[in-house]
Amino acid sequence: MDFTLNKTDPKSNARAGEITTDHGKIQTPIFMPVGTVGSVKTIHQRELKEDIESQIILGNTYHLFLRPGLDIIKQAGGLQKFIGWNKPMLTDSGGYQVYSLSNQRKITEEGVTFKSHIDGTRHFFSPENVTLIQRTIGADIIMAFDECTPYPCDYDYAKKSMHMTHRWLKRCLDEFQRSEPVYDYNQALFPIVQGSTYEDLRKQSAEEIASHEAEGNAIGGLSVGEPAEEMYKMTELVCDILPKEKPRYLMGVGTPANILEGIERGVDMFDCVMPTRNARHGLLFTWDGIINIKNEKWKNDYTPVDPAGTTYVDHDYSKAYLRHLMKTKEYLGAQIASVHNIGFYLNLVKTAREKIMSGEYSEWKNKVVKNLENRL
Amino acid sequence: MDFTLNKTDPKSNARAGEITTDHGKIQTPIFMPVGTVGSVKTIHQRELKEDIESQIILGNTYHLFLRPGLDIIKQAGGLQKFIGWNKPMLTDSGGYQVYSLSNQRKITEEGVTFKSHIDGTRHFFSPENVTLIQRTIGADIIMAFDECTPYPCDYDYAKKSMHMTHRWLKRCLDEFQRSEPVYDYNQALFPIVQGSTYEDLRKQSAEEIASHEAEGNAIGGLSVGEPAEEMYKMTELVCDILPKEKPRYLMGVGTPANILEGIERGVDMFDCVMPTRNARHGLLFTWDGIINIKNEKWKNDYTPVDPAGTTYVDHDYSKAYLRHLMKTKEYLGAQIASVHNIGFYLNLVKTAREKIMSGEYSEWKNKVVKNLENRL
Repeated sequence: MDFTLNKTDPKSNARAGEITTDHGKIQTPIFMPVGTVGSVKTIHQRELKEDIESQIILGNTYHLFLRPGLDIIKQAGGLQKFIGWNKPMLTDSGGYQVYSLSNQRKITEEGVTFKSHIDGTRHFFSPENVTLIQRTIGADIIMAFDECTPYPCDYDYAKKSMHMTHRWLKRCLDEFQRSEPVYDYNQALFPIVQGSTYEDLRKQSAEEIASHEAEGNAIGGLSVGEPAEEMYKMTELVCDILPKEKPRYLMGVGTPANILEGIERGVDMFDCVMPTRNARHGLLFTWDGIINIKNEKWKNDYTPVDPAGTTYVDHDYSKAYLRHLMKTKEYLGAQIASVHNIGFYLNLVKTAREKIMSGEYSEWKNKVVKNLENRL
Repeated sequence: MDFTLNKTDPKSNARAGEITTDHGKIQTPIFMPVGTVGSVKTIHQRELKEDIESQIILGNTYHLFLRPGLDIIKQAGGLQKFIGWNKPMLTDSGGYQVYSLSNQRKITEEGVTFKSHIDGTRHFFSPENVTLIQRTIGADIIMAFDECTPYPCDYDYAKKSMHMTHRWLKRCLDEFQRSEPVYDYNQALFPIVQGSTYEDLRKQSAEEIASHEAEGNAIGGLSVGEPAEEMYKMTELVCDILPKEKPRYLMGVGTPANILEGIERGVDMFDCVMPTRNARHGLLFTWDGIINIKNEKWKNDYTPVDPAGTTYVDHDYSKAYLRHLMKTKEYLGAQIASVHNIGFYLNLVKTAREKIMSGEYSEWKNKVVKNLENRL
């Protein structure tokens, strides 16, 4: 994996770069749509490629490990071949899902024992086996196994957990070094900064993570319920320490405004289920703010879904029709809203990149960020 | 509306023709995907047009009347404009849904009082108001209000019901004559033959329907549970009486084999929810037979969904991936299976048309029909 910085904003830490993987290039800053079990919900791969112009999508190790399981993915030749997506992918380490979804999880120094949320079967994740599982799933970028602390989290727990995450990181890196890619392309492993919302822990964690000189670095444990200002503060502090010459990934973030603020602080990569999940509930992100398409006010609004939108659904369908589909619980409603939202997120980061390249990021961000959270 | 017969099969009653409406031409025999509330479930309009090459789709008056309601459709400028489909459409009269879906329906000579299956509100459908409702919905082809008898149905009820359907037809035709199109294009009204599975009633009904010299004629009350042989016998008998120079529409039919048998007996138009409904349950229609993609045997079959398929989903995705999506209840599973099935149905009738044009329909049908109901 290679990362080239194309431009740094003169007035902020925003940067435009390019990641090169064996499955192609990714222009940063980038948003990565979440394809939990190997599908970005309701969106065809062709739409992701041709209409939305997604450059990289994410898969969840926890979900893929349970279904379809490693055998099926391995026989297919890896996740990309299995799902029919010949561009870059990233998998998380399963850490977050183990804590948020599974039953009866037990965390020890060795790893985590948990029960599947689907059938109650018992499984064990360790830094070593999660690294090998991600080798088999075969994403271009794989993540270290960490503990994602909740918010709020008391200082002592956050500190202990952070140290364990650091020890786990060493075990992940060792296993990564010992093992080979399962398929005929390379993988990069990104470590994850933890430390909850404590400045000293975040600094300490960022320094520890930076010391490994990995091909990219991630910030975890944010966007878990803390105020946005806390998230921005931690992001800023961590980005100051993480190496400039490597991509930085802020995990699980966030709203369009969160993303623009993250970019301003030096983040290059984002992922979040929000655009697809909210789409299924009828919430549409636009440059002018958020539309709840189920509201009565859109009942007879025959204007396009989003006149400023970049995907075909924005122009092929009207708000009134989309509202009707959501009210009648038609599949197509969720499909239209999801293509719109993911298209909007990709257009958001693409526009951010253009503004960084032209040296006007901060002014632009300050202007647009106010509108993004309007309720229309 | 205009209908031109291009070719009649020398060895059967199969015919290839062309219907011209103000929204474009339809090459027959044709299958019409069902877009119940204004959406062919899980399929984008763009896919219907560009990938599946649907020439006409169907809407359900009962559903559209309840949601979004006539005001919304009228303000949009008709159903086509509302849903973003600039090709021909057909609406049924609501008769079938009133009997199969609504609660506490009461049929009198005047019409049918029923309660909505959604919110229990009380409504009244009569030949006159259903004609006007369909004027407002605005499909190119609209249907007479009939009573669709169940199977089995005793002779006396079938006879009485048929006579009422004939009286209702006259009221529909009168209302149709009295009224004007709501939008700037023409509509055609098709009457419907009833008579259950009784030969004398079917003959009598076909003669009555033929006498009105409508722009097209439909056969209703079949595919409601009777053996396929009964359906074929009634179809044959009715097609012998209905005028050759007008299109014939066999309502609610059916399996791929049913359609090929219907074409052989002189039917030009078909509709059925089967390809989309079965798709959502993981059943795929192919030239070699029916695939239940949820079966274990497809678990690690990495061949394309349907190597002989004509749509992009057939080649972009594998059986193993589609099975995984269906097993995990991902939206994309239903989406892929639906595009495949509707694509298959459109390819089926397109191929049938080619075989009629080249004069080899019967031999071809006899050869392929055996495979279509195989369980793979």
